[in-house]
Amino acid sequence: MLLFHILTLFPEFFAGPLDVSILKRAREKGLIKIELLNIRDFSRDKHKKVDDYPYGGGAGMVMKPEPIFEAVDFAVGSVEARKRRIILLSPQGRIFNQEMARELSCEEHIILICGHYEGVDERVKTIITDEVSLGDFVLTGGEIPALAVVDATSRLVPGVLGSYESVSEESFSNGLLEYPHYTRPEVYRGLRVPEVLLSGNHREIELFRRREALRRTLEKRPDLFKKLKLTELDKKLLEEMGFGCQE
Amino acid sequence: MLLFHILTLFPEFFAGPLDVSILKRAREKGLIKIELLNIRDFSRDKHKKVDDYPYGGGAGMVMKPEPIFEAVDFAVGSVEARKRRIILLSPQGRIFNQEMARELSCEEHIILICGHYEGVDERVKTIITDEVSLGDFVLTGGEIPALAVVDATSRLVPGVLGSYESVSEESFSNGLLEYPHYTRPEVYRGLRVPEVLLSGNHREIELFRRREALRRTLEKRPDLFKKLKLTELDKKLLEEMGFGCQE
Repeated sequence: MLLFHILTLFPEFFAGPLDVSILKRAREKGLIKIELLNIRDFSRDKHKKVDDYPYGGGAGMVMKPEPIFEAVDFAVGSVEARKRRIILLSPQGRIFNQEMARELSCEEHIILICGHYEGVDERVKTIITDEVSLGDFVLTGGEIPALAVVDATSRLVPGVLGSYESVSEESFSNGLLEYPHYTRPEVYRGLRVPEVLLSGNHREIELFRRREALRRTLEKRPDLFKKLKLTELDKKLLEEMGFGCQE
Repeated sequence: MLLFHILTLFPEFFAGPLDVSILKRAREKGLIKIELLNIRDFSRDKHKKVDDYPYGGGAGMVMKPEPIFEAVDFAVGSVEARKRRIILLSPQGRIFNQEMARELSCEEHIILICGHYEGVDERVKTIITDEVSLGDFVLTGGEIPALAVVDATSRLVPGVLGSYESVSEESFSNGLLEYPHYTRPEVYRGLRVPEVLLSGNHREIELFRRREALRRTLEKRPDLFKKLKLTELDKKLLEEMGFGCQE
């Protein structure tokens, strides 16, 4: 069982997201557990203050160290875990990716601290194991990134996905974008499903899918394409599409 | 006023996230409007089916084209807009970033289609203007990415952020990670705020912050650092830190 503690100023944010689809099912099956801690509850200030002006001046407010330190203490104290990560979600962090999700899915206890982006007192960095960012964009707080980490990680906990759902994981992890999918009807608003997919010729279908996956990756994500180890077949398929000299 | 339509199989996902903090305020002020459409409501199937088996075989289910086409038609028909984007959230998309958020904040109408990651019928691509991904990790659906797009974009709509909140945007957009923030108390669990921030010497504080922003960016995000246009002062600060030959 993987336990998440989410430390946030907005626990009400999580009301919907944790109660749908795969996260809901994973929680019901007892494969993961998610506990929300309101950072404000750990403020010793009589007004339950959680932020204050920055030393050295400047705009914006900074999240105070005490409530976060104490909330982390509480989370750590609430469960014995041999493998624990304490993660601050912040735009200064390492960019989250599938490899990180895989690592995290092997932990027992993950504490996620949702910063708000005016900033968190720097001393919080002394008690974390990781600082993680979702990407190069500015969000209101760490809540959306925390959700992404919980979702991507939970999917990799054994038993969370049914056997057929986990196929798309593997597809992503081979370094290629996925091939195009089609389902019924055969013609919709004049748009036809590619003939080959209706042919029943499994070898041809496989070649079509591999070709399209290569084409998409090359066209849309040249950065991923560069990292591919191309097979002889891949090279032949690329040549047929006129991408012969791309290797 | 910027109108978002979110097309999803899980409208209940959005119950919490749209009702806290800055998104809540922006909606209350009438600066943005967010409407949820349940894709299932647009299924003409008597069982309200929204997915079906993939042509050509293989694991997983594919989201059918009709309910999505019709939901998009409905959204488009519901408002006159000169500037409209129709975005499919999918792992095959362009990676979302702050520049995209800035572009989107100038639109009038944004339709977000939350795919589920077994896949969406490829013909949906014929009616979208953009395909956007949050990053290289696998999520259960497009709901979390849609939320990130709504949040990052709404923050840039004029009037949504107070004047002091918008400073952190600018800070991010200069290509540097933010400098460290500290607030009271001066000493917490033996950890002191850097002396210079208590000095009242504004010039020294400014230099400290610039130096730390440069150091962080160089150490944590060499990819961003490479894109910086360093000033003469930056070069001097880097040299003082022993990074003289990094340029």
